[in-house]
Amino acid sequence: MNYRVVGFILAWVFRVVGMLMLLPCLIALVYRESEGWIYLLLALIALAAGSLMSMWKPKNMAIYQKEGYIAVGLSWLLMGAYGAIPFVLTGEIPFYIDALFEIVSGFTTTGSSILTDVEALSHVSLFWRSFSHWIGGMGVLVFILMMIPSGNGGSHMNLMKAESPGPDVSKFVPRVRNTAMILYRIYLIMTIMEIAILLLSGMHWFDTLCLTFGSAGTGGFGILNTSVASYTPLQQWIITIFITAFGVNFSFYYLILTKKYLDAFRMEEVRTYLLIVLAAGLVIMWDLRGMYRTIEETARASFFQVASIITTTGFSTVDFNQWPAVSKTVLVALMVIGACAGSTGGGVKVSRVIIVFKSIKEELHTLVHPRSVRHLRMDGHVIPEKTVRSTYVFFITYFLIFALSILLISFNGFSFETNFTAVCATLNNIGPGLDMVGPAANFSLFHPLAKVVLIFDMLAGRLELLPMLIVFYPGAWKKH
Amino acid sequence: MNYRVVGFILAWVFRVVGMLMLLPCLIALVYRESEGWIYLLLALIALAAGSLMSMWKPKNMAIYQKEGYIAVGLSWLLMGAYGAIPFVLTGEIPFYIDALFEIVSGFTTTGSSILTDVEALSHVSLFWRSFSHWIGGMGVLVFILMMIPSGNGGSHMNLMKAESPGPDVSKFVPRVRNTAMILYRIYLIMTIMEIAILLLSGMHWFDTLCLTFGSAGTGGFGILNTSVASYTPLQQWIITIFITAFGVNFSFYYLILTKKYLDAFRMEEVRTYLLIVLAAGLVIMWDLRGMYRTIEETARASFFQVASIITTTGFSTVDFNQWPAVSKTVLVALMVIGACAGSTGGGVKVSRVIIVFKSIKEELHTLVHPRSVRHLRMDGHVIPEKTVRSTYVFFITYFLIFALSILLISFNGFSFETNFTAVCATLNNIGPGLDMVGPAANFSLFHPLAKVVLIFDMLAGRLELLPMLIVFYPGAWKKH
Repeated sequence: MNYRVVGFILAWVFRVVGMLMLLPCLIALVYRESEGWIYLLLALIALAAGSLMSMWKPKNMAIYQKEGYIAVGLSWLLMGAYGAIPFVLTGEIPFYIDALFEIVSGFTTTGSSILTDVEALSHVSLFWRSFSHWIGGMGVLVFILMMIPSGNGGSHMNLMKAESPGPDVSKFVPRVRNTAMILYRIYLIMTIMEIAILLLSGMHWFDTLCLTFGSAGTGGFGILNTSVASYTPLQQWIITIFITAFGVNFSFYYLILTKKYLDAFRMEEVRTYLLIVLAAGLVIMWDLRGMYRTIEETARASFFQVASIITTTGFSTVDFNQWPAVSKTVLVALMVIGACAGSTGGGVKVSRVIIVFKSIKEELHTLVHPRSVRHLRMDGHVIPEKTVRSTYVFFITYFLIFALSILLISFNGFSFETNFTAVCATLNNIGPGLDMVGPAANFSLFHPLAKVVLIFDMLAGRLELLPMLIVFYPGAWKKH
Repeated sequence: MNYRVVGFILAWVFRVVGMLMLLPCLIALVYRESEGWIYLLLALIALAAGSLMSMWKPKNMAIYQKEGYIAVGLSWLLMGAYGAIPFVLTGEIPFYIDALFEIVSGFTTTGSSILTDVEALSHVSLFWRSFSHWIGGMGVLVFILMMIPSGNGGSHMNLMKAESPGPDVSKFVPRVRNTAMILYRIYLIMTIMEIAILLLSGMHWFDTLCLTFGSAGTGGFGILNTSVASYTPLQQWIITIFITAFGVNFSFYYLILTKKYLDAFRMEEVRTYLLIVLAAGLVIMWDLRGMYRTIEETARASFFQVASIITTTGFSTVDFNQWPAVSKTVLVALMVIGACAGSTGGGVKVSRVIIVFKSIKEELHTLVHPRSVRHLRMDGHVIPEKTVRSTYVFFITYFLIFALSILLISFNGFSFETNFTAVCATLNNIGPGLDMVGPAANFSLFHPLAKVVLIFDMLAGRLELLPMLIVFYPGAWKKH
């Protein structure tokens, strides 16, 4: 293990977190909130500590696969541990585990909350909470690798791979650093577009910022106790469209930007994703017939919730815990499927679901024609055997963590539906579940130990399991 | 496709079903029940039809993989379709889908029932219902291959593979036919032992027969509305021990019989299985502390239910739907794990769970040491890459069928817990689930279409997915 390079990355994470914490201070200036001083102090401490630490440059900048995963796992633990402190110091979330739950839920773009009254928070803390979604959506390491030099052995790629969602990372351009820049540029442009349109629709600037961060990162923290229910129908439609867009594989936008329209619209994952959104929306509309006054209202409720859940955002405009069984089951299925790979969304990702379906079909084909050898294809290209295999392992590990988590939190004594959807909502980075953790409820009632399990699930979900597992795998910490 | 060999096997299935239906007629003689005539008539029809059909011998007896799976899939559909008829004709289960559900539940050793009052059934039908467990436990095709000649291309092996549970079939002796004979001999000896011991304990002979069939096949149909609750504590302990024993990989008994004691006790799967039983039993005992009067009663309730659920038998002595959350979650976990491969139990099998855990550990090891190549091992032998891969595909297909089934039956409008555990109980061939399908309830309230889904799940679970999928895969039915 190259401990020094891991330490160097952690130093950079400190610096970036410090920089990011300066932003809420601006909000504190506007609203003249004294909580801002705490954020300022913590920002300066992080900047100082990070700068000091990063002066101790490693001689060897090589980041191999192992260091990549461990650096990413530890960075996210550090971000959570440090990012939770302001909530405790301002006294707004006095208990540390709760504060940790809240900020990890933010960074991992989950959006599950332990707060019973969101509106009691100061503007500066509300902003920090929502802003953490925006940071976590695209990833902090992807941001940092734009600034640190690349060692040999594909160092940047190993960081990128460990933090980016999906079974495979596509490089738009040969250099990983430039790919990261393009990704952040697309992310920024889309964020600014949403801010502009929401402002035009007449939304208050503070709400606009927070909701945009929440939808861009597919996070889901609202700033009102009613989530997005009290905004105008037009604003709800705007948000529906934007969260759907943020759940699309960013390769799609890169192809559009480089005018490869045909390739863009040929992307199987994007087409499947949009098809699922459409189908799920229509099924739920049918299931909800007669529940709302107009067809527009039914369509809005259905498609808002479908987009919010499949992209794993977790905003809500209605209490879907009150919906009939089919709608609820469709939503739980969407929770697991999740958004596209290479988007800011969570879940197992549409591309992995496609690989699984193709595998099963292929398995049947091989059974019937034992001597024929065919390769799985996506977008016309052969899917490497390694990707198929890692998809299998991903699924199996995913279901295992799912089952173990349900088992552990069941010691809390809540209903099976509560436990199942609580794990589903955190492991897939969605936010609300059903029953006691439904959209009108929250996670405050869980025992601190159950919260620790769910915190682990949020991190494991956002980082797609391996980085979190390897941090706790003793074999990884041996000297060689 | 070699249609003629498939037809020939189906003819044999008819003959065997006819032979087996003669047994209930003996019960009818004893109890002087007129329902016996219907069984006699149907037995003779099946024997005649089967004998006629099997005269048309195929020239080519080769059963390749495809034919093996299709023959097994169709045989089980046929057994269900024909075996349901007596229930309808005697008027005891007038609606055909219900009768089909009941007998498929019998053959697949599930034990889920649509009957609200089991005790209203005639003795002859009660016997047929329980006897179907015994037949389905070891498998009908495994029985038939002892009688039909083997074609080239490993014909017998392909039949055996398609019907036997577990990721891999172990041949005790070079010839498959002899392996099948040894399996049936062990099965018969253990069955006779249970009958003898239960009779000695003072149980009525009819109850003894039915309960033994239910535990040997790990089926779970009781003949009383209270399942096994009204038998003496001693009898409950005897059944606990026998169902646990029937969930052990039969290779273990073969090793014992051939005096390879050391090899027997080295079997990782058996040791893990017994360890899980012990651990789960103790956890539930702890969780139930204070709920029952004595420690013996608590231990009996815990271990009976643990053994009944992990072996996917499904008998119950108490209404575990009333148990606290931890116990219920442990039971749901056991439902999925299931018994050993090569036993009469269902579920995903302990050996598959072991392979999955080893795979994940290996994946982490490879991440840390990218250049080291190790093979997964079980009982000291390398697990073939093919077995690992098919285990992955099994799991993924399993979870997919699981999810789709829940989605489909959710149209019935019941609770999530009901739907989840109904699918869990049928796909894993257990019997009772929780909530509306708990041990004190039954499956009668489901819509006929939901019952069809659950019938499919029972068959898919017993045959480990592929035979049922391939029957409905259009590509399999093409001429070449």
